[in-house]
Amino acid sequence: MTAMRILTEAELRRIVPLDLDAIACVEGAFHALATKAVAMPPILRLDIPEERGEVDVKTAYVPGLDGFAIKISPGFFNNPKIGLQSTNGLMVLLSAKTGLVEAVLLDNGYLTDVRTAAAGAVAARQLSRSDAAVAAIFGAGMQARLQLEALSLVRPIREARIWARDAAKAEAVAADLTVKLGFPVRAEADGRAAVDGAEIIVTTTPSETPVLRAEWLQPGQHVTAMGSDAEHKNEIEPAIVATAGLYVADSLKQTRRLGELHHAIEAGLVTEDTIFPELGEIVAGRKPGRSGPEQITVADLTGTGIQDTAIATLAGARAAMAGAGTIFES
Amino acid sequence: MTAMRILTEAELRRIVPLDLDAIACVEGAFHALATKAVAMPPILRLDIPEERGEVDVKTAYVPGLDGFAIKISPGFFNNPKIGLQSTNGLMVLLSAKTGLVEAVLLDNGYLTDVRTAAAGAVAARQLSRSDAAVAAIFGAGMQARLQLEALSLVRPIREARIWARDAAKAEAVAADLTVKLGFPVRAEADGRAAVDGAEIIVTTTPSETPVLRAEWLQPGQHVTAMGSDAEHKNEIEPAIVATAGLYVADSLKQTRRLGELHHAIEAGLVTEDTIFPELGEIVAGRKPGRSGPEQITVADLTGTGIQDTAIATLAGARAAMAGAGTIFES
Repeated sequence: MTAMRILTEAELRRIVPLDLDAIACVEGAFHALATKAVAMPPILRLDIPEERGEVDVKTAYVPGLDGFAIKISPGFFNNPKIGLQSTNGLMVLLSAKTGLVEAVLLDNGYLTDVRTAAAGAVAARQLSRSDAAVAAIFGAGMQARLQLEALSLVRPIREARIWARDAAKAEAVAADLTVKLGFPVRAEADGRAAVDGAEIIVTTTPSETPVLRAEWLQPGQHVTAMGSDAEHKNEIEPAIVATAGLYVADSLKQTRRLGELHHAIEAGLVTEDTIFPELGEIVAGRKPGRSGPEQITVADLTGTGIQDTAIATLAGARAAMAGAGTIFES
Repeated sequence: MTAMRILTEAELRRIVPLDLDAIACVEGAFHALATKAVAMPPILRLDIPEERGEVDVKTAYVPGLDGFAIKISPGFFNNPKIGLQSTNGLMVLLSAKTGLVEAVLLDNGYLTDVRTAAAGAVAARQLSRSDAAVAAIFGAGMQARLQLEALSLVRPIREARIWARDAAKAEAVAADLTVKLGFPVRAEADGRAAVDGAEIIVTTTPSETPVLRAEWLQPGQHVTAMGSDAEHKNEIEPAIVATAGLYVADSLKQTRRLGELHHAIEAGLVTEDTIFPELGEIVAGRKPGRSGPEQITVADLTGTGIQDTAIATLAGARAAMAGAGTIFES
């Protein structure tokens, strides 16, 4: 019999808020990806087309961390019709020494939200101008909110614009964020106007056709595209990838297959074997970041198993420290 | 918030014993594999060589079942040095309609033991002579015990022999099983003598060189080889696969890669594209089973995700019926 800890979403929200520690934790994971013999096997994917359902299972082992996570992420897109959210799931934290289950994190996707937003903050900290004060967010979902919140932790943001296909949603998110973050956030119906004068642009949509055009970009801007986690998703015009001063992947292997880079390759604008820096290499100082205040930089984030392992390890450690959750013997 | 059920190993042992229902459940899964659009993606595998650790994640969706399982199976082979068992793990049962987590089965590998033994019983029921009364078991581990127990549920077994590399272990298992099963079980140091006169032979070892020789086999015998779940494992002489009257795979795709068939292909005794029946096709009556009392039959069992989904679904249904386990809201 061994003891393991079961944590509910409410408990996890309490012990792992989106804060500078969470950002540092995810930054550390990218550092490890660049400097250690990280093992990150291909995603296991099960499709249940009858229910418009899919399940992804991700994992990664980071040498030096006591544990590793296995994340189960179901997305069932008929759920909203019956009043349920589409995405759910949990993470299992196992000991990297013994394989024993240390914790089951019943997070319903919350920790994924946090580690995804934290990666956006890492990208901004590494690639955007340090004086970036204006942000433009494309999309009005959970990540639109969290990405702006995460940016405001690492850059002196004092103004933001929200563009979304659904203008009413953009208005609602802008109103909420103005209250929550304490600086003006306005909905902007015109994409070009949203981008004009922003130092950081984050796309958070599930769009299959670009919502951000190359001709709108201005010198010095940083773009994080984080919505494209599947082959068919495409948020930014492929020319942006091809012409940016600096393009950075979270995992080049993944962005060649899933990310915005994939669409630039398909459009024939970039060759498949072109080497681009990865975010972790910049975090670790192995490749240069922004070359100066006028460079246009792009981060292409598809989501990696190391982020899950990092955030789950943080959650496990914090829960043990706080005595949070319920202990099961089995 | 949704409710899910957490079940410990002790609770699962109580509600899912190795019995005829468990065997019928696994038989149903093989039937489905042959007759329905089952989705069974490749296994996700993570290796942690520093700790002699590995983790497999398996899943399968069977149309018509309300749920599907994702099984996490760690094997950490330094564990016995610190007094822990090598294999552990859990299963997560999700709704096939919504992807919501319905139950977390903290079974430490128990349900895998049951579904593996049940598959042996299915193979014996489909392929061995119906009057089979004498069994020979190779190996002295958990599956040696459970395979004989499972056989005794489906065939009129009245005598058994245990052969194992470690004679003392074979003696201990034989003594235990004689008491438990109520018929004589004796340890036999000579493999050929163990096989002589047995109608059913089950190999349950992790051997990398054959423990069962072709020349020992006699007309009418049925062999189930269930220890080979990795490329390097090989329990039966490849000639047995090549010359048996009937060779049956649990999953032909898997046995070509992992099972005994794989070694017969490597030895050049069978071509890679030879079509053999699968166990589910025989269960479903789509391919013939044993042709008569003198045929030598072989079942090559590598373990499939459908068995996990079947046994986890059974566990979930029984737990709900019995009100077993602990309900979590998250």
